[in-house]
Amino acid sequence: MKMDRSPYYTTKIFPVPYNRDDMDSIKPTGFTAMPLFERIRVGFQRAGQVRQFFLATCESLLYNTELMQELVERKFDALLTDPFVPCGAIVADYLSLPTVNLLRGIPCSLEYLSTQCPQPFSYVPRFFSGNTDRMNFLQRTKNVLVAFLQPMLCWFIYSPFEELATRFLQREVTLVQLLSQTSIWLMRYDFVFESPRPLMPNMVLVGGINCRDRQPLSQEFEEFMSSSGEHGVVIFSLGSMVSELPLEISNRIADALGKIPQKVLWRYTGLPPTTLAPNTKLVEWLPQNDLMGHPKTRAFITHGGTNGIYEAICSGVPSVMLPLFGDQGYNVDHMVNRGAGVKLQIELLSTHDLVNALNTVINDTRYKETMMKLSALHKDRSVSPLELSIHWVEFVMRHRGAEHLRPAAHDLNWVQYHSLDVFGVLLVSVMVSVWLMIKCCSYCCKRCWCGTRNQMKRKPD
Amino acid sequence: MKMDRSPYYTTKIFPVPYNRDDMDSIKPTGFTAMPLFERIRVGFQRAGQVRQFFLATCESLLYNTELMQELVERKFDALLTDPFVPCGAIVADYLSLPTVNLLRGIPCSLEYLSTQCPQPFSYVPRFFSGNTDRMNFLQRTKNVLVAFLQPMLCWFIYSPFEELATRFLQREVTLVQLLSQTSIWLMRYDFVFESPRPLMPNMVLVGGINCRDRQPLSQEFEEFMSSSGEHGVVIFSLGSMVSELPLEISNRIADALGKIPQKVLWRYTGLPPTTLAPNTKLVEWLPQNDLMGHPKTRAFITHGGTNGIYEAICSGVPSVMLPLFGDQGYNVDHMVNRGAGVKLQIELLSTHDLVNALNTVINDTRYKETMMKLSALHKDRSVSPLELSIHWVEFVMRHRGAEHLRPAAHDLNWVQYHSLDVFGVLLVSVMVSVWLMIKCCSYCCKRCWCGTRNQMKRKPD
Repeated sequence: MKMDRSPYYTTKIFPVPYNRDDMDSIKPTGFTAMPLFERIRVGFQRAGQVRQFFLATCESLLYNTELMQELVERKFDALLTDPFVPCGAIVADYLSLPTVNLLRGIPCSLEYLSTQCPQPFSYVPRFFSGNTDRMNFLQRTKNVLVAFLQPMLCWFIYSPFEELATRFLQREVTLVQLLSQTSIWLMRYDFVFESPRPLMPNMVLVGGINCRDRQPLSQEFEEFMSSSGEHGVVIFSLGSMVSELPLEISNRIADALGKIPQKVLWRYTGLPPTTLAPNTKLVEWLPQNDLMGHPKTRAFITHGGTNGIYEAICSGVPSVMLPLFGDQGYNVDHMVNRGAGVKLQIELLSTHDLVNALNTVINDTRYKETMMKLSALHKDRSVSPLELSIHWVEFVMRHRGAEHLRPAAHDLNWVQYHSLDVFGVLLVSVMVSVWLMIKCCSYCCKRCWCGTRNQMKRKPD
Repeated sequence: MKMDRSPYYTTKIFPVPYNRDDMDSIKPTGFTAMPLFERIRVGFQRAGQVRQFFLATCESLLYNTELMQELVERKFDALLTDPFVPCGAIVADYLSLPTVNLLRGIPCSLEYLSTQCPQPFSYVPRFFSGNTDRMNFLQRTKNVLVAFLQPMLCWFIYSPFEELATRFLQREVTLVQLLSQTSIWLMRYDFVFESPRPLMPNMVLVGGINCRDRQPLSQEFEEFMSSSGEHGVVIFSLGSMVSELPLEISNRIADALGKIPQKVLWRYTGLPPTTLAPNTKLVEWLPQNDLMGHPKTRAFITHGGTNGIYEAICSGVPSVMLPLFGDQGYNVDHMVNRGAGVKLQIELLSTHDLVNALNTVINDTRYKETMMKLSALHKDRSVSPLELSIHWVEFVMRHRGAEHLRPAAHDLNWVQYHSLDVFGVLLVSVMVSVWLMIKCCSYCCKRCWCGTRNQMKRKPD
């Protein structure tokens, strides 16, 4: 839906049983303050709706005989997909193609299950737990509980895909089995942003793949930037999925933006807020990466999507972050933890808070310094994330996969993987040995004692 | 001892309390068939002798006040060392320098302990276990037992270094603590050779760093290679540490070499075997990497050292392997498991076995095909191992370490790391809840039952 045509690839279009209006009917959540359980209920409801669209799309593709036949006949070398929607994995299995996955993450850690990647509860924070890698006892307990709930989340999101895969491939198959056939996982993060954790050999970090060298701005944007004087510009975008807000919230935001000395470029397609100040310019679209690298840019107001965060890291721009849904809360917590920005809750946002937050990240030089340090670490690579991705995609095409990176762990069941059978047998062996030893000792003692008693009995004779 | 001078570095020499004769007195083991326990005893004895040399060298360096003062004053940016001898780690701590470790491995897995790298017993084979990554129940049991014995091995090899570090740094310190301060671990293996396993973010694989592009041979070697005709040449070297053999073994080997149609280049400095055939040329030194890449080279007879194995992989030359000590048995098992060569035991070697093995790896095309496949996988990299190593050394110098790659696991104790405290509390909570529930139920039941009985009692009234 969001993908433009390009001379570099062929786009095939196939019919689906819904239209754009149906899709637009799913409104993003997060703009209204709600009790926790209500928020979870609404979140699940929305996730269920989105899943139905993905599922219908996948089913329409798989059962489009003509298109699938064409895919078979084209004899591709590899399949590149984001496994967040696991339709690609089903197609890859059907076409017997090696797969490269390009992803930010899967909410229920399916990528770590499918790669057999260890993720110790004690320092690998789970999505939605609100934890970082440094946790106290209570946070670690929460991390364990969230980890235990993840299979339920997986079941909720992905069980219909498993059912579809089983039906289409005509054999009982789980999603973990399908995804574990992946040759290479290109993970859109790095340890400048994410906290360090174990990785498997077929996981390649390509965080920041979306950052490009800054291109010159169009005249319109360049003039706006240059006219900002010594105070510079704040860039404001809530991502491709949220380009308008409830009027009440946008009014509070516009009010705050009018109170800072910077100029503001705001990507916004809704009704202009009534409190819009002259320093703020609304635009339908902005060249975010190029603006971020502009020397006049002072701060970034973002929802905390991974692409935006990496663009900020690449250019070293501190952020005020208003997480809305999905992985955004997790991303934002990481950035706050690094001292690279300030987090605000959009549903509780006051004019005063936003002004304060903006002034803080712009005028407290520590934020800029932290971002510049993260930027330097992130960009100091032997090969760029884009080139690395190209290398691995071509590697998989050249060698028909990357079988040599597949750990033998995939052939073990849960008991074997954790060596529970070995420990069980060793434990029993030790216990039997100890029991035998005790028995032997007690037998010897008894004989000894009996002997002594007999001797003593005999003595009086 | 083996390091030449170079325009690229300054060599400092400091006195040590032993001489070259003392060092030469340590003879390599492995040439005589011995019972297992005798072999272990001799191995330990030899390891103990070697350790004493390393320890004496380290102590001589650390307590060489003048040299250490000079190192302080030079204000280096980083320290590059092989942690197999952990003297570098002590110096790095003393000089407060970030460290880059370049290593093949540490026999008792100290590198994985010090990086907090998970190494599941079930598919990560331990050194000296003889296992590969695919193990049956008995092999997995052996793997667990060997893993349990590793701390003892660590203690045997490294406890004197811990004592020295504690004495020199004037604080209680373990080797794991010292090594865990390492910024980057450059590991001299890759998953073409090694079996896939989890890695930590600061572990970088640079296996094959010793392979260079083939340089032209000297006239002497080139003439020898060219004169070999269609049958080509076999290269034979047992590494830099073993350049002669007991005469009885070398006679058997020379006899076998005379029976193959290939010519043979043998690095050997001992007395020439009496059975030496005209096709075999003894040399004191050979340009192994350049010879290996020569189109006339048909096979490699090696002790299975990592450098030699990677040179064979780079050039796609199948091997006959005679492991002697250290990691060589482990290396050789891996290559045999990959179908890339044949293993023989040097102490039991017969002429017939060696002729057979050479004919097999040369004439059975599967060996050559496997090696060419491994070679293609190994060389298909986005950046060469040498360039990658340079990048990371310079990275550490530029950023004074790589703190962002250090996992939070280092701040946890064993109980916390494995979440045993969390599981304990959760288990107790569940048990208390169940107990309370049972108590409540039984209380309710009792009341209910009493009530019924009382009613029944009252009824007759």
